[in-house]
Amino acid sequence: MSANTPAPWDALPIREELRGQSAYGAPQLDVPVRLNTNENPYPLPEPIVRRIAERVTEAARTLNRYPDRDAVELRTELAKYLTRTCGHEVTTGQVWAANGSNEVLQQLLQAFGGPGRTAIGFEPSYSMHALIARGTGTGWISGPRHADFRVDVEGARAAIAEHRPDVVFITSPNNPTGTAVEAETVLALYEAAQEAKPSLVVVDEAYGEFSHRPSLLPLIEGRPLLVISRTMSKAFGAAGLRLGYLAADPAVVGAVQLVRLPYHLSAVTQATALAALEHTDTLLGYVEQLKSERDRLVTELRALGCEVTDSDANFVQFGRFEDAHKTWRALLEQGVLVRDNGVPGWLRVTAGTPAENDAFLDAVRAVLDRPGNAPDPRPDPLSTGNPTKETNR
Amino acid sequence: MSANTPAPWDALPIREELRGQSAYGAPQLDVPVRLNTNENPYPLPEPIVRRIAERVTEAARTLNRYPDRDAVELRTELAKYLTRTCGHEVTTGQVWAANGSNEVLQQLLQAFGGPGRTAIGFEPSYSMHALIARGTGTGWISGPRHADFRVDVEGARAAIAEHRPDVVFITSPNNPTGTAVEAETVLALYEAAQEAKPSLVVVDEAYGEFSHRPSLLPLIEGRPLLVISRTMSKAFGAAGLRLGYLAADPAVVGAVQLVRLPYHLSAVTQATALAALEHTDTLLGYVEQLKSERDRLVTELRALGCEVTDSDANFVQFGRFEDAHKTWRALLEQGVLVRDNGVPGWLRVTAGTPAENDAFLDAVRAVLDRPGNAPDPRPDPLSTGNPTKETNR
Repeated sequence: MSANTPAPWDALPIREELRGQSAYGAPQLDVPVRLNTNENPYPLPEPIVRRIAERVTEAARTLNRYPDRDAVELRTELAKYLTRTCGHEVTTGQVWAANGSNEVLQQLLQAFGGPGRTAIGFEPSYSMHALIARGTGTGWISGPRHADFRVDVEGARAAIAEHRPDVVFITSPNNPTGTAVEAETVLALYEAAQEAKPSLVVVDEAYGEFSHRPSLLPLIEGRPLLVISRTMSKAFGAAGLRLGYLAADPAVVGAVQLVRLPYHLSAVTQATALAALEHTDTLLGYVEQLKSERDRLVTELRALGCEVTDSDANFVQFGRFEDAHKTWRALLEQGVLVRDNGVPGWLRVTAGTPAENDAFLDAVRAVLDRPGNAPDPRPDPLSTGNPTKETNR
Repeated sequence: MSANTPAPWDALPIREELRGQSAYGAPQLDVPVRLNTNENPYPLPEPIVRRIAERVTEAARTLNRYPDRDAVELRTELAKYLTRTCGHEVTTGQVWAANGSNEVLQQLLQAFGGPGRTAIGFEPSYSMHALIARGTGTGWISGPRHADFRVDVEGARAAIAEHRPDVVFITSPNNPTGTAVEAETVLALYEAAQEAKPSLVVVDEAYGEFSHRPSLLPLIEGRPLLVISRTMSKAFGAAGLRLGYLAADPAVVGAVQLVRLPYHLSAVTQATALAALEHTDTLLGYVEQLKSERDRLVTELRALGCEVTDSDANFVQFGRFEDAHKTWRALLEQGVLVRDNGVPGWLRVTAGTPAENDAFLDAVRAVLDRPGNAPDPRPDPLSTGNPTKETNR
């Protein structure tokens, strides 16, 4: 929808801040190699598919009844998974689950943000943070990053002290840059947030399983306003399931339950997630393959002369291009769809299967060989003011 | 959680209006006859369960990919269902679906309500309307009803003219009273709402299939701000599925897409709903049985000396009791769980299977035989100021 053409809904009495907007989401194009939405390229293996069918069949036999409103069995299994993989014991009461981590974040903002309150994120980062803030009436503050995309700790502390936000978002690994955040940074920002307000600090670890570093989850110990947000979309290869969750002090879980829609999580979603959680080891095996492919993409893109941001996620940010959108289009013409997140000079590619990654690297070679498409070696002041359109993780 | 005991989350920096609250939801008690949450008592028949397993298996094979963000196939089948059963042709572009009609209503309030705006409902009615308003920062106005629970049309028009709400909720059949709303009433309130603002009018037809009257859906023709909200929870026997939907002008659907979380509806939810929609005739057969049982409950409760509100839903409001909560407890002691919605003097019972309804009627007889439990024949001024705690439809 062009900015100049009024959309049909602009004639309706919608909220002013929505006027002139269009629905967010990456283009869904039919091309051979789709590496634009950070999906896991490996379909669930057939034994997991069969187990899902079994558990859903069981759930469907009582589908006339409301689901478990508190999703206790699912939260128990998620707690066990976190305990086993994050080096910190987590209980059922410390875990909450919803339809994708977007809904988890929305519920957190409904309870701790909302009208008359603000949230801060350090951009470029996952742009849904700002969008969910808008959707919940929470004011949005764009905090700083260094030019190399690491969080600018002193700048961030100063922004927290100045704006006294009610919610602080830290994304680690960061999307779309892939940058991991150090535990010391989280601690420094948590301390600043408590001094300023106190406010809720949400560490979005949607890509946590792909990181070279351990999870930041153990930091919740003794920090009642620190939340770790996670998802089954990426590491569990289940973007279609829409299952996000958080770990935090049980009081935060209690607060979220005040605003969640009753029975928000369907019986089929709970059954499917439980089936996938029975096969964690298999799925984490794919994560190891993807980490290795991610590292290969970093190495090979650098060998091709690209600048590449260090990545702890299942994707890689590469550049820099004088006109990143032109390069995006040139790659698309080669049959490879990557993501233009609106970070000037940079593009993002998801780690796919080895064959998909080969196809992507071939396309990059072909595009770079053309005049005017070589990476731009000029120092380019980073623009951090614009939230990126990163709705697909 | 007693109002006097501070909850753990009250120590956190949650929103002021949440302080002292507890999570909403009906008590989930393990008793022989549960007629408290308006669930359909008939489990899905085995052929539908098998078809769900087939379609979910298919969906699970690509669960690593995001689901169809716009749920086009599902919305197309819902449009066909509405066209076939409501006497009005509905297109895919006029339909939107979400995780339960609660989420549909939340999205409508995010787009058309929100901070600085208000919504009105005519109470007692479905109390989630007021709660979702609170959750979205929308101010809530409690509009009037007559003592017999019909909408007070003149009072409602006056309230709309006075308060100029941005969203008007009309529930038909109404929950918890069972009262249907006449088309003329909807038209009068729509006209008043357009004169006052103009504002969005949402007709919540969650129980539409159980009504003696035709759906109000044809009224959307030529009325760009009239929305009909529906659910698969009741008529489709799928409360566990969490699938709500709306029909309205395509511009309203476009507006809702500005605020929906991307990929809000999982691939398994879409697959399960599509499977159930293949078997509409079977499921509507159960609706006919439930309507007949509902009418029997009305007749037999009246024969027992109860006052019973005319019902167009799958439940019946009966009374009046000097202390409705005491009667609720007495029925529970007989092994029958009904609903105390907080409407003074009244209780609500869901139409169950014939055996469940017999058990309920036996329990009523036993309770009424005790001294002090007979229905209270005194005229009792209706309290309409308190929203009822009707979170389970």
